[in-house]
Amino acid sequence: MTEPYLLTPGPLTTSRTVKEAMLRDWGSRDGAFIALNRRIRARLVELANAADSHVAVPVQGSGTFAVEAMIGTLVPRDGKLLVLINGAYGKRIQRMAEVIGRRVVAIEVAEDQPVDPATLDDALSADADITHVAVVHCETTSGILNPVEAVADIVARHGRRLLIDSMSAFGALPLDAARVPFEAVAASANKCLEGVPGMGFVIARADALAAAKGNAHSLSLDLHDQWRGFEANAQWRFTPPTHVLAAFGQALDEHEAEGGVAGRGARYAVNGRILIDGMRGLGFETLLPDALQAPIIVTFRMPADPAFVFDAFYDQLRERGFVIYPGKLTVADSFRIGCIGRLGAAEMRAALDAIRATLDAMGVASGAP
Amino acid sequence: MTEPYLLTPGPLTTSRTVKEAMLRDWGSRDGAFIALNRRIRARLVELANAADSHVAVPVQGSGTFAVEAMIGTLVPRDGKLLVLINGAYGKRIQRMAEVIGRRVVAIEVAEDQPVDPATLDDALSADADITHVAVVHCETTSGILNPVEAVADIVARHGRRLLIDSMSAFGALPLDAARVPFEAVAASANKCLEGVPGMGFVIARADALAAAKGNAHSLSLDLHDQWRGFEANAQWRFTPPTHVLAAFGQALDEHEAEGGVAGRGARYAVNGRILIDGMRGLGFETLLPDALQAPIIVTFRMPADPAFVFDAFYDQLRERGFVIYPGKLTVADSFRIGCIGRLGAAEMRAALDAIRATLDAMGVASGAP
Ligand SMILES: Cc1ncc(COP(=O)(O)O)c(C=O)c1O
Ligand SMILES: Cc1ncc(COP(=O)(O)O)c(C=O)c1O
Repeated sequence: MTEPYLLTPGPLTTSRTVKEAMLRDWGSRDGAFIALNRRIRARLVELANAADSHVAVPVQGSGTFAVEAMIGTLVPRDGKLLVLINGAYGKRIQRMAEVIGRRVVAIEVAEDQPVDPATLDDALSADADITHVAVVHCETTSGILNPVEAVADIVARHGRRLLIDSMSAFGALPLDAARVPFEAVAASANKCLEGVPGMGFVIARADALAAAKGNAHSLSLDLHDQWRGFEANAQWRFTPPTHVLAAFGQALDEHEAEGGVAGRGARYAVNGRILIDGMRGLGFETLLPDALQAPIIVTFRMPADPAFVFDAFYDQLRERGFVIYPGKLTVADSFRIGCIGRLGAAEMRAALDAIRATLDAMGVASGAP
Repeated sequence: MTEPYLLTPGPLTTSRTVKEAMLRDWGSRDGAFIALNRRIRARLVELANAADSHVAVPVQGSGTFAVEAMIGTLVPRDGKLLVLINGAYGKRIQRMAEVIGRRVVAIEVAEDQPVDPATLDDALSADADITHVAVVHCETTSGILNPVEAVADIVARHGRRLLIDSMSAFGALPLDAARVPFEAVAASANKCLEGVPGMGFVIARADALAAAKGNAHSLSLDLHDQWRGFEANAQWRFTPPTHVLAAFGQALDEHEAEGGVAGRGARYAVNGRILIDGMRGLGFETLLPDALQAPIIVTFRMPADPAFVFDAFYDQLRERGFVIYPGKLTVADSFRIGCIGRLGAAEMRAALDAIRATLDAMGVASGAP
């Protein structure tokens, strides 16, 4: 079977050259690998326009590990975290703070609503104990874009500290430390930066990291220690995923060649436009209005037509060479199709052709003219 | 520059075919990937002859993450851990238990001595509060083999539970659950199983995991939750390192083709013999007597000859195509050379030739005839 395209929130389709970067072995304490790490760490802070104030700390594991390292290290044991929730990833931050043993409160809105800066303003006025606020940049549950700039303004105005989960947005949607004051942002090598999965990273204010010694609930996820290790000798404390790093170095080069955040974001915007217009042409409805939709992943309502059986739809699309997310995360009955990864207009159009053919084969009445 | 051989404790030299298994992308919730996970999990318990009693739970991250998941999940919050220490990895277990907030005591011996079952016996008799004992199988700090069978006997006799860090031994040195009663063992894809780094695993008694709900100090490192996820739908809770998994599947096939643990262990034993005999022929002394030496990594005392400068030795060996560990972990002034990974007798002999040439170039008087 030939390799399918992945229209999912990750793991994603990556370029051949990114994968080929994994065809050699690296000594993790050898000069060549150390140089690779330095380059990656420097490029990551550049991408957030944060080189003067922040440092990048890679973390082994999936994106959740990086988010947990950020929360567990930067929220002190006597701190209090307010989480803004409009989907599964916001809820996950709340749950991890509970497991870690931090005081945590939440403001939750419906999954098709952006988080609300005005309610946040009130909550911070009402509770002086809150030290940190966490928000998800693009809430991948629905694909909604949250207003991180407005949130950051209010958090800064109240003198609190902002932690951002930008897992599914970083590298494609702008996040500029000069305009959006944040304490730290967590993201992954394997979303919009189009590396392979196996590591995340946190870009954190150096002064905040320096003050965070002894906060962490975990040895492996201690971001302060991990950072001190890099600063001491540019090496990882514990074995790094060397091949994943090599792929990430190549992925960052390809990101830069595409025009960085602006170039990557532009391609995804086109992908998203083709997907949404095409699906609407086939009679599907999006969960979100266009104004709230990030060009990352799109949630479609499950069609009413009883001939549409999702598992069969998934399987037939798979046979036609396209893997979508096999289930839903939203409360609404829905499914999701991603438009990130090494895919362009041609692949999105081919995906729509495959969807049309699948609907025909299933006998679903499509809205196509 | 051509790719050097890695004579280190990891990351290691892997086969070309293992690396080529990373040349495709996988949907992490797609059938093909789920089948790969099932196969890997089943094979891992087989390797420990533990299929009737234990389950394998892969963990994202480096080996330390798997060890921390094991300790944090299986030692209950009111438990007490005794760690047997004769090197850095035993000390790391003690430290992580402290960070996690478990009661922990240690018995430490010198780095060139195996841990002592008799002292353990006394300690368990004296302290009924100790619920768990942790031991490192091969303490990679020096390369010493610890007597895990004798330790397991005593722990079982006292009705306590044994947790083994077999990171650098699993897959090459036998560990048979029928002969060595253990509660759990942690290891990595990237040591003797010759996969690439990016994931570890824990093989744990199913009944112990079932009883461990709510113990963990971390969401990402909650082994109970991770296991429940696999049991529910054979999927990872959080994004898996798909390419690392694909490489690991291939590595396990190659391990089986080589004759499993016995075959892999036999090759490493030959590698170790060639290395030790050759180095002694050049005038080097091992830290350990042969009876205590595991065929994994060998520690050599730093030569007294002032012409021997370790950094220059490292660099010149590197130029000749061999990367060794660039520093020491032992208290004794020493350096280490590994004999694991996709290397055989020819590569070990070539490494010795490179060492001989380097000593000549440095003007070190070698003991060679
Ligand atoms: C916004 C967001 N946060 C966190 C995560 C978790 O990342 P991972 O699955 O790599 O642990 C995801 C994954 O899709 C995400 O989209
Ligand atoms: C015995 C032992 N335990 C734990 C580890 C830690 O593994 P990692 O570096 O993958 O975190 C190692 C690494 O060499 C080891 O040899």
